[in-house]
Amino acid sequence: MENFDYFNPVRILFGEGQIARLPSLIPTGARILLTAGGGSIRTNGVFEQVTRALTGFSRTDFFGIEANPLFETCLEAAALCRREKIDFLLAVGGGSVLDATKLIAAATHFDGDPWDLVSREAAPGRTLPLGTVLTLPATGSEMNAFSVISRAATGEKLGFGSPELYPRFAILDPRTTLSLPPRQVANGIVDTFVHVTEQYLTRPADAPLQDRQAEAILLTLVDEAPKVRANPDHLPTRANLMWCATQALNGLIGCGVPQDWSTHMIGHELTAFFGLDHGQSLAVVLPGVLELLFPEKSAKLAQFGERVWGIREVNATARARAAIARTEAFFQEVGVATRLGDYGIGSEAADKVAARFAARGVAHGESGQVDAEMARKILLSRL
Amino acid sequence: MENFDYFNPVRILFGEGQIARLPSLIPTGARILLTAGGGSIRTNGVFEQVTRALTGFSRTDFFGIEANPLFETCLEAAALCRREKIDFLLAVGGGSVLDATKLIAAATHFDGDPWDLVSREAAPGRTLPLGTVLTLPATGSEMNAFSVISRAATGEKLGFGSPELYPRFAILDPRTTLSLPPRQVANGIVDTFVHVTEQYLTRPADAPLQDRQAEAILLTLVDEAPKVRANPDHLPTRANLMWCATQALNGLIGCGVPQDWSTHMIGHELTAFFGLDHGQSLAVVLPGVLELLFPEKSAKLAQFGERVWGIREVNATARARAAIARTEAFFQEVGVATRLGDYGIGSEAADKVAARFAARGVAHGESGQVDAEMARKILLSRL
Repeated sequence: MENFDYFNPVRILFGEGQIARLPSLIPTGARILLTAGGGSIRTNGVFEQVTRALTGFSRTDFFGIEANPLFETCLEAAALCRREKIDFLLAVGGGSVLDATKLIAAATHFDGDPWDLVSREAAPGRTLPLGTVLTLPATGSEMNAFSVISRAATGEKLGFGSPELYPRFAILDPRTTLSLPPRQVANGIVDTFVHVTEQYLTRPADAPLQDRQAEAILLTLVDEAPKVRANPDHLPTRANLMWCATQALNGLIGCGVPQDWSTHMIGHELTAFFGLDHGQSLAVVLPGVLELLFPEKSAKLAQFGERVWGIREVNATARARAAIARTEAFFQEVGVATRLGDYGIGSEAADKVAARFAARGVAHGESGQVDAEMARKILLSRL
Repeated sequence: MENFDYFNPVRILFGEGQIARLPSLIPTGARILLTAGGGSIRTNGVFEQVTRALTGFSRTDFFGIEANPLFETCLEAAALCRREKIDFLLAVGGGSVLDATKLIAAATHFDGDPWDLVSREAAPGRTLPLGTVLTLPATGSEMNAFSVISRAATGEKLGFGSPELYPRFAILDPRTTLSLPPRQVANGIVDTFVHVTEQYLTRPADAPLQDRQAEAILLTLVDEAPKVRANPDHLPTRANLMWCATQALNGLIGCGVPQDWSTHMIGHELTAFFGLDHGQSLAVVLPGVLELLFPEKSAKLAQFGERVWGIREVNATARARAAIARTEAFFQEVGVATRLGDYGIGSEAADKVAARFAARGVAHGESGQVDAEMARKILLSRL
């Protein structure tokens, strides 16, 4: 394996009833900004639980953070933080609310153009502390220091991160996820799955424990996904999916191994240009990445086929190919379509994404092999 | 799964050459106590690397921490810390050096009888910050807040822990482990294995991800153990074993699941009474615990047999029994004998340990089923 640093100071409070512990987690006398999305937490009882727990704290509410949260919205909230002298942020919702809250934490007292925090990963300097009550298992943002932000003015969607942006705590109560629409549950499973493959389906690196830790998450997802479809009210299944999502992107399985992330980078562009859900974009792109980068990835794909999908085919190349097909079928079984055409998108996607990669001069993938031309090929394979 | 809290702020710096980064990890101007064991770090080059990295820091050295570190030794070091106005502890060695250093950190400014820190887990109050350069993968102490201390005056060996005792950082350079004697390597593999089984071979808890994360470590150990015996100089194998040891006891696989620890509790007594190495004591006791608690553990044992040992036997009870036999054989293959008689110990061990359990009024195991009488039966099954 390669050398690595690992540091993750997020405190996790997992299980039913943990929201009531909020008062012990936030400094006494803190002036809190509660951030939230469109209002689903008002109808599913989460907002009521949170506000009851926060009795006695000074609290301002900021609703309206959108899916694929906007830079512009974050700036509004940051201005509110300055006006209200906020000194603690509590994100109540899914990964979008939390990602926005991380940018609010960095932007409130940032001295400079706040877009630099995202586009150039400028060091934020003084940040506001934040915690979260997570209601949607998917992004893993609850246990990492990363955030993905979209900018309406330019149609961009970019990720950034900084160690100051680790949540102080994350409350994961699986009961809060029971009211999620099936589409969000399905997207969350795909997102979790692809977070793992970005760190696992690369080239062999003699890191057998990390491989098996990655496979642990994939195997659990494969077992639990049909259960949540068959019995969406079964709390233990929800708990297991929630813990998978957190473990998939807290840095652990990425320790000392090559990482790809080209599926996410291409997927972000599909969301930015065409409005695909994040999970949908990943389900479309991943099979193409695995096919087009097959020479480099085939050894790990063969291992993945055997250990995760139980494919007994002796020929490793055939097993690797079968593993790609099985993965795409899994996304479809989960309920997420896997072709651009399923979303009414044609070859223009390949041109647009390639043009943007070219303009930025970027190349993604574990060996920097996904440049504009490769991104074009990947998307053309997904029509 | 059960509700849980997880928090682990230890920074890991893994890989060759990481010792050179020490100056960036210790506060400028700190007065350091370097703690170490019998002097092997002087002959294997580690001490030289560390002292070179610490050029310019005020440093006092405290050598002589023994395997199964003594309370009495820790008190000497704590007195030295007070005399020298030490404000940072750097443990250079294996788990014994690190465990002792945790007690030194807690005892230096403790206001009261320092044995209460161990025997009653008294809150330490002000502690000294500590870091470690680990040279022996085994105890997992580098990424947790626990410590096990022996007391010469009373022949006791007890564990304690406190969140203040997490190391600030742990440098894990697998090259430092190349000079370990085979006996320590073998003991470390057994210790790591049993740390996992204490958190995994209990009763089913519908925690499939934690199960698979535990199996990930066991499968890796089973694959890597013969490699380190065949080719002890192969650095990647050492790296994999080192990362397994850390992952086995950093709290992750224990999240939300029942835990046993009776093998450790009985093993500590064998060490205290008869001087067995810690790994030896575990190799003796574990098969007995698994046999005597078979009714409760059989479902997980059957899963363990299938997933870790690849036992195809269809009958679950037979598969579970075969898994116990296979585990004992593994310890022997690693080079650690598994019967009391192998160490010249007879049934007196059962009497002594039972008497101590009875005197303390303790019962261990995931359901508190390992009382004095059960401990006696377990040891009598291991003659």
